[in-house]
Amino acid sequence: MKKKILVSGFEPFGDVTINPTMGIIEKLNRSHQGNVELHTIILPVVYNECANVLIEEINKVQPDIVISLGVAMGRSAITPERIGINIQDTVGEGASGDNHGDRPFDRLIEEDGPDGLFSTIPIRDITNELKKHGIPAQISNSAGTYICNNTLYSVLLHVQINQLSIRVGFIHVPATPGMVLNKPHLPSMDLELQVKGIQTVIDCLSEK
Amino acid sequence: MKKKILVSGFEPFGDVTINPTMGIIEKLNRSHQGNVELHTIILPVVYNECANVLIEEINKVQPDIVISLGVAMGRSAITPERIGINIQDTVGEGASGDNHGDRPFDRLIEEDGPDGLFSTIPIRDITNELKKHGIPAQISNSAGTYICNNTLYSVLLHVQINQLSIRVGFIHVPATPGMVLNKPHLPSMDLELQVKGIQTVIDCLSEK
Amino acid sequence: MKKKILVSGFEPFGDVTINPTMGIIEKLNRSHQGNVELHTIILPVVYNECANVLIEEINKVQPDIVISLGVAMGRSAITPERIGINIQDTVGEGASGDNHGDRPFDRLIEEDGPDGLFSTIPIRDITNELKKHGIPAQISNSAGTYICNNTLYSVLLHVQINQLSIRVGFIHVPATPGMVLNKPHLPSMDLELQVKGIQTVIDCLSEK
Amino acid sequence: MKKKILVSGFEPFGDVTINPTMGIIEKLNRSHQGNVELHTIILPVVYNECANVLIEEINKVQPDIVISLGVAMGRSAITPERIGINIQDTVGEGASGDNHGDRPFDRLIEEDGPDGLFSTIPIRDITNELKKHGIPAQISNSAGTYICNNTLYSVLLHVQINQLSIRVGFIHVPATPGMVLNKPHLPSMDLELQVKGIQTVIDCLSEK
Repeated sequence: MKKKILVSGFEPFGDVTINPTMGIIEKLNRSHQGNVELHTIILPVVYNECANVLIEEINKVQPDIVISLGVAMGRSAITPERIGINIQDTVGEGASGDNHGDRPFDRLIEEDGPDGLFSTIPIRDITNELKKHGIPAQISNSAGTYICNNTLYSVLLHVQINQLSIRVGFIHVPATPGMVLNKPHLPSMDLELQVKGIQTVIDCLSEK
Repeated sequence: MKKKILVSGFEPFGDVTINPTMGIIEKLNRSHQGNVELHTIILPVVYNECANVLIEEINKVQPDIVISLGVAMGRSAITPERIGINIQDTVGEGASGDNHGDRPFDRLIEEDGPDGLFSTIPIRDITNELKKHGIPAQISNSAGTYICNNTLYSVLLHVQINQLSIRVGFIHVPATPGMVLNKPHLPSMDLELQVKGIQTVIDCLSEK
Repeated sequence: MKKKILVSGFEPFGDVTINPTMGIIEKLNRSHQGNVELHTIILPVVYNECANVLIEEINKVQPDIVISLGVAMGRSAITPERIGINIQDTVGEGASGDNHGDRPFDRLIEEDGPDGLFSTIPIRDITNELKKHGIPAQISNSAGTYICNNTLYSVLLHVQINQLSIRVGFIHVPATPGMVLNKPHLPSMDLELQVKGIQTVIDCLSEK
Repeated sequence: MKKKILVSGFEPFGDVTINPTMGIIEKLNRSHQGNVELHTIILPVVYNECANVLIEEINKVQPDIVISLGVAMGRSAITPERIGINIQDTVGEGASGDNHGDRPFDRLIEEDGPDGLFSTIPIRDITNELKKHGIPAQISNSAGTYICNNTLYSVLLHVQINQLSIRVGFIHVPATPGMVLNKPHLPSMDLELQVKGIQTVIDCLSEK
């Protein structure tokens, strides 16, 4: 039986007026072929909503694997995240807060949650597979302290508490060329290559 | 009458075992359509040969415009160069020298040449046109002190001394994704986008 | 009564032939004045020894606070670490392994340990205090996966398991100017300023 | 007879509310000892004034050597400049223009001036001497297109046109730690080390 994979992207936020994860999701939906049953969803960039919306969809879809995608301005490679941590902090992000104006400062995501939770997808295999396909990739040891980390941590915790047999991961992708036209010192990656990358991740996961 | 444009690339050198400028030239030769008569050549990465080979081709082809392409590891955008300077220096490049092992150290290219010579293509128009087409671009104020700068300076000087009505420019392109698989912190740009970029440059020049 | 603070540094490793944390410790020992009883130790850069040596010293000294110092080439500010994670991995470090040639690859530090453990010193207060004293500082969300992270995680776990009332932190410092003479694109910070920074951290902790 | 050296700094501009070159000049004036007759001046950050003010001072002082200092946010080493180029351009600087609001766009400094002029101080010797004294240093091949480059180019041209036997150079220094408190990813260098660096440059020049 085909594995069910739920892939999430994010809506635009702050300076990111076009979020490439929406484009990846759209193209996957159109062109995806293969060994898995693909489900997708776009999440709000809001601390206290992002994970809930995804968890609702998890409950509905009952996937084998959940992969969340987020964009990381300044990164040049596709970076599977190793860990989600129990913190919400917009200070380091220099951000004006999330899309509802929430601007936490060293705030716990879950009062009694563990400090960190490892992603449960095979990040090393994925990274190696991406490189084998000619796509720059590297394991990341920090998903930051913004919405991306929040989503990863919360979903990992949900799966752990409810003892679900769902594997959970988060993958940061670079900006697309169109996003850095006025910041030409920042790296970017073509949307086509990002889509190929995420398709490669899905293929890799379908076999594990 | 169609303008004649001569575009040069470089052979591999040092760690750059596949030089994307060769790929760009190959694809331009295959797919180029349009308003210009395109000529191309691949240059040796050798201080005392690079410019001579190009100048011979210039004498043969008699182009209206000469554009040399080079790869700049670590750059994230297509960068038209503003100036070539009268120096050969591999110190700053940390390099093992050129492909013949020549490793100059603050050596003049031309004993009595001017210190610097501005590129004679419209670098601002080109940069704007690239950005208009969604391609990260930025004017660069230094082509370095390696073979790329040497080629630009020598050809500009040749044209100046011989009072030829040829416009001369140099454009650095980023690494391709395949070149940074083991250096995932370095930026890259898809070869397709680089080709689109250079095609855009050619289109821009054909109209000026 | 004065608080007891145990500060650790590291011996040289790899390209780091002079470890500035040794210099900081030496200068603190010589010039430290003030409100705390200062103890210091230099740790081996060896995965399966670093934490044990520090824990032995903790047992002997019975400190109120343990601060480990490590150098992070490429960082420009003093960076208190937020979290230690349960992993040993030299892949991302591009390193030849630790000083005994151990080169782990996604290896757990503690088979049944939690995935991550937050530092228990007030990293935000420390960072603010450093900046108030004119010293560039920033909370870091990843201590890497090398000896530094290993030390932080293992000591945090030791303190947690044994329910000790000891606060534990890790602070990365930049390279010193002498370390980047042949890598002039890398940032550095004067040893004097680093010492002032760590003294500021100690003063901050003595009051909390 | 002692050589006369004229050293210039710049007033604050844009985000640079405290210009470290003023601090360097102040400390040199107070503590400078040695083999040269030192003269100093602070220049306005205004395209059409910076060089004139310095040239007036040159006419008055009749120095053997003129060294201008400028700050380069983002650089980690002391960088003697190789060349000044005949252009004023604030686009790449992302700046709001000079201190009089002048915001040129690919404008020539001197209508009929040469495209570039090499610095006439021994930049390689200076760089080596700085490194020998433990100070990160590197030759820079671009002084940008802002006031710093303008000053270097204009003074070099003045000296050339008037056939003066004055050597002219420009040295960029990093930000100081206090300037990057809210930009902790940017490198900095202690003012004391910068002063030691410029004193080392002066000593080096006094012997050549």
